[in-house]
Amino acid sequence: MSPRQRQTRDLLVHIDRALPRSLRRQLEDQLRDAIRSGALAPGSELPSTRALAQELGVSRGVTGRAYVQLAAEGYLELRQGANPAVRNLARVQLAPDAAPVRAGARVRYDLRPHLPDVNSFPRQAWLRSVRTALAGATSAELGYIGAQGLQQLRVEIAGYLGRARGVAADPDRIVITTGTAHSLSLLARALTHLGAQRMAFENPSHFVLREVVKHAGQTPVPVALDSEGVRIDSLRAAGAQSAVVAPAHQFPTGVVLSAERRRLLIEWAQTSGGLVLEDDYDAAFRYDRAPIGALQGLSPEHVVYLGSTGKSLAPAMRLGWAVLPARLVDPIVYELAAGMIQLPGIDQLALADFLHRGEFDRHLSRMRTIYRRRRDALVDALETWLPDCPVRGIAAGLHAVVELPSADVEEAVCARATSIGVLVQSLTQHALPGYDGPAAVLVGYGPVPEAAIPRAVQQLAEIVGNARPPLMARAG
Amino acid sequence: MSPRQRQTRDLLVHIDRALPRSLRRQLEDQLRDAIRSGALAPGSELPSTRALAQELGVSRGVTGRAYVQLAAEGYLELRQGANPAVRNLARVQLAPDAAPVRAGARVRYDLRPHLPDVNSFPRQAWLRSVRTALAGATSAELGYIGAQGLQQLRVEIAGYLGRARGVAADPDRIVITTGTAHSLSLLARALTHLGAQRMAFENPSHFVLREVVKHAGQTPVPVALDSEGVRIDSLRAAGAQSAVVAPAHQFPTGVVLSAERRRLLIEWAQTSGGLVLEDDYDAAFRYDRAPIGALQGLSPEHVVYLGSTGKSLAPAMRLGWAVLPARLVDPIVYELAAGMIQLPGIDQLALADFLHRGEFDRHLSRMRTIYRRRRDALVDALETWLPDCPVRGIAAGLHAVVELPSADVEEAVCARATSIGVLVQSLTQHALPGYDGPAAVLVGYGPVPEAAIPRAVQQLAEIVGNARPPLMARAG
Repeated sequence: MSPRQRQTRDLLVHIDRALPRSLRRQLEDQLRDAIRSGALAPGSELPSTRALAQELGVSRGVTGRAYVQLAAEGYLELRQGANPAVRNLARVQLAPDAAPVRAGARVRYDLRPHLPDVNSFPRQAWLRSVRTALAGATSAELGYIGAQGLQQLRVEIAGYLGRARGVAADPDRIVITTGTAHSLSLLARALTHLGAQRMAFENPSHFVLREVVKHAGQTPVPVALDSEGVRIDSLRAAGAQSAVVAPAHQFPTGVVLSAERRRLLIEWAQTSGGLVLEDDYDAAFRYDRAPIGALQGLSPEHVVYLGSTGKSLAPAMRLGWAVLPARLVDPIVYELAAGMIQLPGIDQLALADFLHRGEFDRHLSRMRTIYRRRRDALVDALETWLPDCPVRGIAAGLHAVVELPSADVEEAVCARATSIGVLVQSLTQHALPGYDGPAAVLVGYGPVPEAAIPRAVQQLAEIVGNARPPLMARAG
Repeated sequence: MSPRQRQTRDLLVHIDRALPRSLRRQLEDQLRDAIRSGALAPGSELPSTRALAQELGVSRGVTGRAYVQLAAEGYLELRQGANPAVRNLARVQLAPDAAPVRAGARVRYDLRPHLPDVNSFPRQAWLRSVRTALAGATSAELGYIGAQGLQQLRVEIAGYLGRARGVAADPDRIVITTGTAHSLSLLARALTHLGAQRMAFENPSHFVLREVVKHAGQTPVPVALDSEGVRIDSLRAAGAQSAVVAPAHQFPTGVVLSAERRRLLIEWAQTSGGLVLEDDYDAAFRYDRAPIGALQGLSPEHVVYLGSTGKSLAPAMRLGWAVLPARLVDPIVYELAAGMIQLPGIDQLALADFLHRGEFDRHLSRMRTIYRRRRDALVDALETWLPDCPVRGIAAGLHAVVELPSADVEEAVCARATSIGVLVQSLTQHALPGYDGPAAVLVGYGPVPEAAIPRAVQQLAEIVGNARPPLMARAG
């Protein structure tokens, strides 16, 4: 038996035509899991697309597209004249929304979801705050600063969150982190140490967040989602001690948690002793009605509030916050201290000044107007060019969910769009096992100039049009 | 049996008069270990100084001073009219050199070791680099940046380390962290995952670093130190897979690793497959002879080079670097990515500009002159006021080691000095089990104006003079 044959056998890939997921997706998921789990070690070779297709009894297009997708995600290295090889997992890009295209490929439209418009970053106002911070920094503030973050920044954040989001925010309950995913990583670690290892995630939800908490010892458990948000019966059945939810604008579906579900979710936490981790990642951008206050304000001892400057200012700011129940402050500060992750003093002082001056509120207000126009332009263009595709999740945030008739169409659309430099994300790549909702393409509008949106949608519509007929025909 | 008696019994403190360590130190170490290990839970009460002294058959001064020291370190809460209670460990200050004095206490002289002079932080030059960074930042640099750190910063750091420290620094082998202790935490975690869990530490060495690696799954193993530096026979006997050393200026002893030991240390790494973690924390400040190049330059595949801007610019900068052997780059980047610890893009760009303009070199050169003068003033004052105490470790760094006749004197001097606002550190608080070197007080001169040094030393000398005679008499 040649090494290659042995490799193929070892893959233990099972394709099941009865499953609702496409063959390519099944293959891709199983290979990805095998690489993540270490069952396929870094450096090991995979069979050629032809050999694997023969072995599995599928077309070569299925194996080829699976390999291309895994290569785009960083799991595989495709080599000229040689079989694909498994890359070192450390190279896998875990940053949310890092570009999936190869260096040098031309990007026509970057429609990836929840990318903010960093070109609108208020450079002058921020520089002014840095200048103020540098001029006023005391010796203590330039020295070894505490792991919880500077007090004056925590005071300003508490003030902002109280007035803008209805958060019950005591500065002593706030910790400064590098962002929401970092906060979640710290919470996951602390919960693991406390013996609570099942963390519920909405299905679908951002796959990167699940990777982050897995690395910190948690087991992500899927919980069903419907048009009112997370389903509490499913949550109760999950047996989780904590649950990550995004009540204001769920990612990726864009669903807003209904008033009744909010009540039930808090009840779940209060009766079961569970902890709700409220990801408020883009709630500052809400367009059609008054913002709904944060869940945390209803039950501060059972909800952790998570926010950051990543979407509101720029991802590279790396400043975020968690508002914690009293009992979690010490464990989280200890995680930060023992990991020696203190964040830059000058940046903390500058952000405090930026908040204090009202620059943050002004910037958000300006961006809300810009994003609303882009959102409206996107909805108009979708109505014109893709009138048959339902559009969801547009009340807030930085992306729309454009539903597609099947997982096969979704897959074909995303692959084709990416290959010609129209960057979009598929919804089902964020799905956990058991997902039975619609397939969709996620269309972000954060960084796209208003004038470019119609053309971008037109291109996308062409791709959808080309992808649909043959696949629809095949299904029929 | 009253709860208090039970508490005392549970302490299992054993005082052994045959040991070379003072009774107070023995008591303090055992209580500290019991708190750290969780054997003494947060909130539990300790007996009064009187009750504990009776039970152990020691003077009340011994128990009282042990409690005061543990309170200063954050382990105990001393309460008016009630017994001392164990504080939550998360509140224990793990930041190196965080002030041990209570808020409100007046600091006369801050002589803690390796505090830099943050009043000399080049605010204008740094602001200029932030302005340049903000003006030139691309969309990608304001977006989601990679966990390894920005390429242009790694290029500048490689250039600096190559010319200033003889480091074989390939930008692709550099990762950006929040500082040396953070780098060490990441390395400890990666080594733990790779199955290597014994990490050698020089005895003495900074206790905070040992706490950090313990939290990341490592077992610190003490290795003996003599006047030539780390003892290789002791290192070989330790059975460690990695060893943290500071060849240029060991903390806290100030010893410089001899040429022969450098050779033997590299030989240990190459023959045993061990990894040397080179802590180059203050090597930029070397006064009397040409700087010795970094160990890493001799064997880049067996030595990790660790540095930061903490001492050279300001602790609150929170930017450091590790130069890694090829095989460790992926694991360390993965630790950063999976923990979602990316560092601020603007700061990284600003530091790249600061290095590129030569501002970093200019600042170091300016500080070297300032610190040399302070060092000379300190040595002069010590010769005048404490002529009987040998002074060591003054060739580099930001502190001197002033030897004292016994651990009892060291203990009395540090307690008294701190109580009147003269902040010093004891050497033996950094000792691991088996330490048999001299007792000493560590006298830092980083932030102390030259003109204030004679008065500070005079005060210290008075304290030493008062501490010595009775204790000497008691010993004789």
